[in-house]
Amino acid sequence: MFSGELDKAMATMIIANGAAAMGDDVTIFFTFWGLNVLRKAQKIKVKKDFMEKMFGWMMPRGAERLGISNMNFGGAGAVMMKSIMKKKNVSSLPNLIKQAQEMGVKMIACTMSMDVMGIRKEELIDGVELAGVATYLGEADHSNVNLFI
Amino acid sequence: MFSGELDKAMATMIIANGAAAMGDDVTIFFTFWGLNVLRKAQKIKVKKDFMEKMFGWMMPRGAERLGISNMNFGGAGAVMMKSIMKKKNVSSLPNLIKQAQEMGVKMIACTMSMDVMGIRKEELIDGVELAGVATYLGEADHSNVNLFI
Amino acid sequence: MFSGELDKAMATMIIANGAAAMGDDVTIFFTFWGLNVLRKAQKIKVKKDFMEKMFGWMMPRGAERLGISNMNFGGAGAVMMKSIMKKKNVSSLPNLIKQAQEMGVKMIACTMSMDVMGIRKEELIDGVELAGVATYLGEADHSNVNLFI
Repeated sequence: MFSGELDKAMATMIIANGAAAMGDDVTIFFTFWGLNVLRKAQKIKVKKDFMEKMFGWMMPRGAERLGISNMNFGGAGAVMMKSIMKKKNVSSLPNLIKQAQEMGVKMIACTMSMDVMGIRKEELIDGVELAGVATYLGEADHSNVNLFI
Repeated sequence: MFSGELDKAMATMIIANGAAAMGDDVTIFFTFWGLNVLRKAQKIKVKKDFMEKMFGWMMPRGAERLGISNMNFGGAGAVMMKSIMKKKNVSSLPNLIKQAQEMGVKMIACTMSMDVMGIRKEELIDGVELAGVATYLGEADHSNVNLFI
Repeated sequence: MFSGELDKAMATMIIANGAAAMGDDVTIFFTFWGLNVLRKAQKIKVKKDFMEKMFGWMMPRGAERLGISNMNFGGAGAVMMKSIMKKKNVSSLPNLIKQAQEMGVKMIACTMSMDVMGIRKEELIDGVELAGVATYLGEADHSNVNLFI
């Protein structure tokens, strides 16, 4: 999960949860903008330099604040999509993430991206592991289906 | 096929048709914005609530109306790309879709996305099957190459 | 590699180089906007018609001029990201490409895209092979992990 948009994150979690429900082992590696999906909604006090603060301030804080990749109109599109999904009884993104964790979907945050974007472990939701690209490659190598989203 | 842009849809169909020509079984699962690729060009009379009408009106109606993912300039980029491709004898997207269907490429529209976006079966081109994420996962599980576009 | 943005190209090269370092055979097929990653930084004298000149002029010339896919702000985002990455000792994109070539990562430019965009072999960095979608499919068919970026 490289992207940080609501619609792509929903697709990721729906695929992941579907696979987990069918008994597959599922790992999601969150990198670059995808890290924003894992951020806690609340502001966490951590030491950051100027650039890291800028980044942290400009990027959406967590699954409830993401925009959509198309027709977002400054966030109105995301609000509209969330309201429609609620009406149609589609689980919200935070709920899909919670379900994924309950079903044992492994979620890994990319340490290099965390370093570049200045995101600390305390800022990510609980239950997330930290690892680098070698771990991703190891998982990908013995997985049956692997997507770049 | 998650995206709904002309350039990405062209890439999808060129890969799909190439694989089908080499004798592979090919399935494309259209979800989210990708559904727009499958919409009929003409307006179809179906009952929709207000939000579904809005969605239907804002999203491009079919393969001939898609924008491109880069340098679209309000549609001018897509027009320019189509004119260049025609000059270079690259098949148009509607033709690529027709060829895919003739070669037996299976096209599946995601029922959950159809529900969320308020798109009805009658609004999609003929020959499209309807199914959910479990069907996608089943196909992906025994496929050799699987891409998220 | 379909996309032509700095952040996605970095992800591609980091994954490719990681896999090559682990002893895997790696091939990257550059198509559509991805071709821009392979363009030489300097202007190369080649014959082009009007549309090809337009395309060549509007698209970024090589790995050092790419924007980012999110928060680019007319290039400021890309400059900011490059400065942060330098500070954090992440290799630059041109360096990652050089490392990839040294490790034997095969880079293929899509001939159909080159034709459509009017990009000539002389405009691409050295060491790039040219081939079509059938070559991509052949490589993908016997690869273990295949991503669309």
